Amino acid sequence: MLPVDLNLPPGCAIDHIAIAVEDLDAGESLYSQFGLAAGRESIASEGVEVSFIATAGTRIELIRPLGPDTPVGRFLLRNGPGLHHIAIVVPNIDSTLEQLVGQGARLVGERVRTGAAGRSVAFLHPRSTGGVLIELIAAS
Amino acid sequence: MLPVDLNLPPGCAIDHIAIAVEDLDAGESLYSQFGLAAGRESIASEGVEVSFIATAGTRIELIRPLGPDTPVGRFLLRNGPGLHHIAIVVPNIDSTLEQLVGQGARLVGERVRTGAAGRSVAFLHPRSTGGVLIELIAAS
Repeated sequence: MLPVDLNLPPGCAIDHIAIAVEDLDAGESLYSQFGLAAGRESIASEGVEVSFIATAGTRIELIRPLGPDTPVGRFLLRNGPGLHHIAIVVPNIDSTLEQLVGQGARLVGERVRTGAAGRSVAFLHPRSTGGVLIELIAAS
Repeated sequence: MLPVDLNLPPGCAIDHIAIAVEDLDAGESLYSQFGLAAGRESIASEGVEVSFIATAGTRIELIRPLGPDTPVGRFLLRNGPGLHHIAIVVPNIDSTLEQLVGQGARLVGERVRTGAAGRSVAFLHPRSTGGVLIELIAAS
């Protein structure tokens, strides 16, 4: 079930919980009750438009696919809206990924790419993490 | 998609992200890389044993079913391990639930019951929240 021991360095923190939605307006209407809708951003390379809700703790990221033939579009077709991934900030994404891939971790897509707010991100495949899509975000 | 406007009062905060696992040892081995394994607890009424991982931000709750014929046991059979629910602390769970049910929200199980650490909890059905099982936890 958990073939990979992540063995991530200290300093990791959960950055956000991502929820796949069909409609950002409706999602913001619901989740802004828990915090402040902090702006939207389109990430063409991932095929999504996202909206962050800043809460007292972890942020919520609402993600809407830009079309049906995108990863999140296919997720919605397969599963319907709901919890999609969690994101964790790591101090050094390159060395973390090198270590994980060396341990046999499977990634989704290319190793490191540009995510929301221009930060470097990578995704660990659920098969390597006990069923949870985990986004790693470079701390700087 | 989102029939219910939660309209929760101020003071709400995300308490934890819950992940259904088949094996708490393996789950702790993975997720304790992100924080401190803070102890286990069996909640017989929910049919689960849980393990909390305290991170810099939101806690992770690993949940293992006590048997296959439990809500989380059935979740694992249907979906496999993965993201299960998010939990939000609310200042007054009784008035929040009264308002939500008045708006047509569907709950899972009886209204308020005792969850981890003896706190009063209730669960909003994913059909009322755009696909996300949401646990409400009384602040006190």
